[in-house]
Amino acid sequence: MALAGSPRAKKGILERLDSGEVVIGDGSFLITLEKRGYVKAGLWTSEAVVEHPNAVRQLHMEFLRAGSNVMQTFTFSASEDKMESQWEAVNTAACDLAREVANKGDALVAGGICQTSLYKHHKDEARIKKLFRLQLEVFARKNVDFLIAEYFEHAEEAVWAVEVLKEARKPVAATMCIGPEGDMHGVTPGECAVKLVKAGASIVGVNCRFGPWTSLKTMRLMKEGLWAAGLKAHLMVQPLGFHMPDCGKGGFVDLPEYPFALEPRVATRWDIQKYAREAYNLGIRYIGGCCGFEPYHIRAIAEELAPERGFLPLSSDKHGSWGSGLNTHTKPWIRARARREYWENLLPASGRPFCPSLSKPDA
Amino acid sequence: MALAGSPRAKKGILERLDSGEVVIGDGSFLITLEKRGYVKAGLWTSEAVVEHPNAVRQLHMEFLRAGSNVMQTFTFSASEDKMESQWEAVNTAACDLAREVANKGDALVAGGICQTSLYKHHKDEARIKKLFRLQLEVFARKNVDFLIAEYFEHAEEAVWAVEVLKEARKPVAATMCIGPEGDMHGVTPGECAVKLVKAGASIVGVNCRFGPWTSLKTMRLMKEGLWAAGLKAHLMVQPLGFHMPDCGKGGFVDLPEYPFALEPRVATRWDIQKYAREAYNLGIRYIGGCCGFEPYHIRAIAEELAPERGFLPLSSDKHGSWGSGLNTHTKPWIRARARREYWENLLPASGRPFCPSLSKPDA
Amino acid sequence: MALAGSPRAKKGILERLDSGEVVIGDGSFLITLEKRGYVKAGLWTSEAVVEHPNAVRQLHMEFLRAGSNVMQTFTFSASEDKMESQWEAVNTAACDLAREVANKGDALVAGGICQTSLYKHHKDEARIKKLFRLQLEVFARKNVDFLIAEYFEHAEEAVWAVEVLKEARKPVAATMCIGPEGDMHGVTPGECAVKLVKAGASIVGVNCRFGPWTSLKTMRLMKEGLWAAGLKAHLMVQPLGFHMPDCGKGGFVDLPEYPFALEPRVATRWDIQKYAREAYNLGIRYIGGCCGFEPYHIRAIAEELAPERGFLPLSSDKHGSWGSGLNTHTKPWIRARARREYWENLLPASGRPFCPSLSKPDA
Amino acid sequence: MALAGSPRAKKGILERLDSGEVVIGDGSFLITLEKRGYVKAGLWTSEAVVEHPNAVRQLHMEFLRAGSNVMQTFTFSASEDKMESQWEAVNTAACDLAREVANKGDALVAGGICQTSLYKHHKDEARIKKLFRLQLEVFARKNVDFLIAEYFEHAEEAVWAVEVLKEARKPVAATMCIGPEGDMHGVTPGECAVKLVKAGASIVGVNCRFGPWTSLKTMRLMKEGLWAAGLKAHLMVQPLGFHMPDCGKGGFVDLPEYPFALEPRVATRWDIQKYAREAYNLGIRYIGGCCGFEPYHIRAIAEELAPERGFLPLSSDKHGSWGSGLNTHTKPWIRARARREYWENLLPASGRPFCPSLSKPDA
Repeated sequence: MALAGSPRAKKGILERLDSGEVVIGDGSFLITLEKRGYVKAGLWTSEAVVEHPNAVRQLHMEFLRAGSNVMQTFTFSASEDKMESQWEAVNTAACDLAREVANKGDALVAGGICQTSLYKHHKDEARIKKLFRLQLEVFARKNVDFLIAEYFEHAEEAVWAVEVLKEARKPVAATMCIGPEGDMHGVTPGECAVKLVKAGASIVGVNCRFGPWTSLKTMRLMKEGLWAAGLKAHLMVQPLGFHMPDCGKGGFVDLPEYPFALEPRVATRWDIQKYAREAYNLGIRYIGGCCGFEPYHIRAIAEELAPERGFLPLSSDKHGSWGSGLNTHTKPWIRARARREYWENLLPASGRPFCPSLSKPDA
Repeated sequence: MALAGSPRAKKGILERLDSGEVVIGDGSFLITLEKRGYVKAGLWTSEAVVEHPNAVRQLHMEFLRAGSNVMQTFTFSASEDKMESQWEAVNTAACDLAREVANKGDALVAGGICQTSLYKHHKDEARIKKLFRLQLEVFARKNVDFLIAEYFEHAEEAVWAVEVLKEARKPVAATMCIGPEGDMHGVTPGECAVKLVKAGASIVGVNCRFGPWTSLKTMRLMKEGLWAAGLKAHLMVQPLGFHMPDCGKGGFVDLPEYPFALEPRVATRWDIQKYAREAYNLGIRYIGGCCGFEPYHIRAIAEELAPERGFLPLSSDKHGSWGSGLNTHTKPWIRARARREYWENLLPASGRPFCPSLSKPDA
Repeated sequence: MALAGSPRAKKGILERLDSGEVVIGDGSFLITLEKRGYVKAGLWTSEAVVEHPNAVRQLHMEFLRAGSNVMQTFTFSASEDKMESQWEAVNTAACDLAREVANKGDALVAGGICQTSLYKHHKDEARIKKLFRLQLEVFARKNVDFLIAEYFEHAEEAVWAVEVLKEARKPVAATMCIGPEGDMHGVTPGECAVKLVKAGASIVGVNCRFGPWTSLKTMRLMKEGLWAAGLKAHLMVQPLGFHMPDCGKGGFVDLPEYPFALEPRVATRWDIQKYAREAYNLGIRYIGGCCGFEPYHIRAIAEELAPERGFLPLSSDKHGSWGSGLNTHTKPWIRARARREYWENLLPASGRPFCPSLSKPDA
Repeated sequence: MALAGSPRAKKGILERLDSGEVVIGDGSFLITLEKRGYVKAGLWTSEAVVEHPNAVRQLHMEFLRAGSNVMQTFTFSASEDKMESQWEAVNTAACDLAREVANKGDALVAGGICQTSLYKHHKDEARIKKLFRLQLEVFARKNVDFLIAEYFEHAEEAVWAVEVLKEARKPVAATMCIGPEGDMHGVTPGECAVKLVKAGASIVGVNCRFGPWTSLKTMRLMKEGLWAAGLKAHLMVQPLGFHMPDCGKGGFVDLPEYPFALEPRVATRWDIQKYAREAYNLGIRYIGGCCGFEPYHIRAIAEELAPERGFLPLSSDKHGSWGSGLNTHTKPWIRARARREYWENLLPASGRPFCPSLSKPDA
């Protein structure tokens, strides 16, 4: 199968989705760059864009090579009380970095905004929309290809975000960080999806907080909600790259392992292939990841869906499908691992016999 | 505590160790770059040095920022039958990259050679030494600061490697990829250490194949062997960054999860702090990692030993010691994780209730 | 606290429950006697009553000493095609054994019938009721104290059973072997409870097939269903003594471990104390167990509810509450286990690092 | 295959072993009767013999039916300070009960003594031997068939016990409660075996404290010790019926789960068949169990070794070999469990996802 990357005119996000193409999102920036030493856990902010641009550029490159069709800008939230000067410089630089790498392949640039810390305190629509608009101005100036409102736990605030983003006359995607139980006020996933589409989002779904399988359950509910309301929209999913069947309504932050001991929960590439297939079968066509999704996880999506897409991602030049690269190993029992059935059925051990398999969330 | 990096004249490896300083090694290249999309599992070769130099440079930078005092060249093994032309170009470029990054901080460049595929077939000392010498010529020309013979499973071949490396009149370190049961011919760790020191190695130890705790057991045996023989040498350890109490004599390659489903076994930063402390208490002063050691694992060594070294690594500007960065989180139960006791005692769950905690090695 | 057993006039089952008393059921006969060598798995029939009456009497005695207020007759189902002659002899003997032991303490005798194998094939009410009536005749002749229709997976058949049992003009209890998803035709637990009460059952609930916590979830639904319908009835629960959060709608028979490898799932006495407390708090006053409930599990119910009942069971003369019997052990770390907090919080290990914690049901 | 129990003249223990017969021991009394409500944990004494003789008789019967060739008397240790009057009555009754049941089948009666609490305090050989002699007098008077010195953690005291028991001119077996590390003074298993045989024991081995596989390791060392010393003796093993790879030198009492939360560690019948086969292959011919061995575990030994012995135990009339009794089940997926491969390869789940698989011993 051919590797991706042949030059061709870039199609817009809706053009792709409308024609039935699979769009592969990118993966984790915050948690991945924390492990590489460029982002501070707790703050989770994106100064690395200006402090260590090579590190951010390199990570964009890895996702591009892995098959991502979208470079999300690694941007900072604007806020009322802090970073007034810095966020704009960071966000401008973030757009430039994303565009620079997107230009090296078949990827679009998406500018993203997320929920504010204000909403919990006052729900002042005007003040919150003002913050969204500030950020949008940079994206508009930098002419990103489309916009994403992501990581919203309240449907109402997500709707406000979509309403602001629509002002730029670019396609808008909106993803909430909710599970099957719905948003923090009990708005069901189906209702959330309906509200977002009615507000103007062309693509709706979920990102972050929950693992792949929980997120797909939520997506099914969103899909059913849209169907029941007679609405149409493209579906998008960007879950965590962790196994967390034990997390409660608050998602992974409530698990005792968050954020410094999540290692044993990291998904394998084979887990992600299963997730990609299931997402595809559910009708989702914008498939990516959030925290925990390393470049090889994104590649796993691209490899799983290569038959549908017709090509492999660039970094498959360094990957034998389903472990086939092991077929020349000198040890016969390792050669025996060079096949799909082996990895598909393996139940990997944790190497931690004194640890449980599940935790109880702290809240 | 001050961050590292103030300019000062660089001391040589033996000067450091002789004066009692802790030397921090670097971490994983092959497995880390495989996940980033630049190295092919199975081949495990280092063409990325010429194909994607930015990716390799970036990883060196991450280890430097994490506190590594040694940049190991990401070099290719010379062999008789293949890659005759390419390996030399790769290795030359690898030396340049390592030097470029080492110059940005307090790090030395080490050139490394490892076991050949010939030894199992014929044990022809002359032919094997010729291969080692070929590689050494590049290191000599590029004037690396010291040399490492690493990843040897046969004491005899390791001795040959040390004998060749000594010809360059630079300090030589030698590490074997053995566990407490000794080399493939039953030479005990103590005997291995004695042979290596007698052959001229100034620093001896183990790297790869076994997890931190198993490797420390092996180190204790090496130390006792040297002591019993009345020999002195510096001790060095660079284990895997995985939990694998279940691996047999052959080490991690025999575990069913190798190499594509090792995720649940990855050590946390807290595990590595315990390992670093235990290694230090055992008298080891060259402490690093091998496959599975990401930049944040190396930082964990540097943070654990900051009291002894008197400074923190550069990338601690993005890390609160023992989770202290969580102390401003809005949720009180997450703030409660901003303390040493929490992370030190946490037994992290795998999130995989259908998986066992241990596997049986395939061989 | 006084031990139970002082002679007093026996109150009937409804008299007890109406006055708010806790009634403790008995435990496992089939699985317990299988392990003792008297019952054959697969057949699960009760010939032991005539073949080894001492074994059955002894088990009744153990439950009586453990605090059971009910001796359920260890009876055989009548069927159309087999055992026509034998079942009657077995059931007569079973009644005598139960009565003999009940007479030694404060226990009643309950005669029980369960679902037929006919229902799945034809749902012929007349033929099925005839079988129930055959069994009832023995119970009537032997003058049992009350009747239980138990282990029904179809609400309709359970209703028929209640209707037949009511003919004997004794109190009737009815328990279904369903989980929170309801019966095999999707009748919810709440609806099942309503149907059973309307058919004449004074006591309703669930028995078998699901573990304690799942069964309590089902009970909560039954309670809510009765409440919503404006009906009143006593509640009764007799779950399995196994941990099985992983079982599907079919219950424990579908788990791969059924019936010969359930050992690691057996509840501890402390688990059962928690279950008893939770059942009590839910308003259930007839609390017992089914398969897997050994005599010490029944004692755990009686000990947990001793404050409410005002006395301990007889076999508490051989049990220190919450491990207090360990307080004279010679080893201090074992003496340290002689307290409630220790056992209440212990998460017991399986000793099986190569086994998972959960299984996937076969169907 | 025929069931056991045809009347024949009883052969003595040595006659059986000398002729190569397999002798099957019995199982757990203390822990089994604790769960049935007749023995108090902590005290672990055998008053049940007089208080509830039916319960003790029934358990003897279950072991007899399961295939045991030895009824060990459920006797009380004599001691200097307490129970002076009671122990003799208990032990006399225990002998009578054992004999009564032994007479119903092909079983011998063995009188057993175990270590004293004195040895730790003063090692006064005369006082300790006096206590052993007191107990022996009852066994001599009741004419048991042979004698067992069991549960000794000090080789010296075990030797004293053998020396006393030899005075009765009956065959003497001696088992220590040690693991592969040897006795409490570092006497290796091999040395222990040699000392016991030299003191006059005809049968040597281990009982209690460690699981089946650890005990077989100890037995291998005993066998090698005897062989190296040019001595011959029959080998005997009666391990715990629990999985406890995690227990340290002190055995199961040091595990946090001892004694009230060992449930998840209980061996399945299939585990015990493997143990029986391995014991047999190691040359052991007296094979039984200790704490945790229920009647069905003893039956598993007898069924595994039925080909060698030529007959099945009595209670196999209630057991289909390797699950064959499930072959008429109505559900096809349960019928599929009616075969050896299924149960032999099953890795049973604990149903406890919040619990670890291993514990750290308390000491």
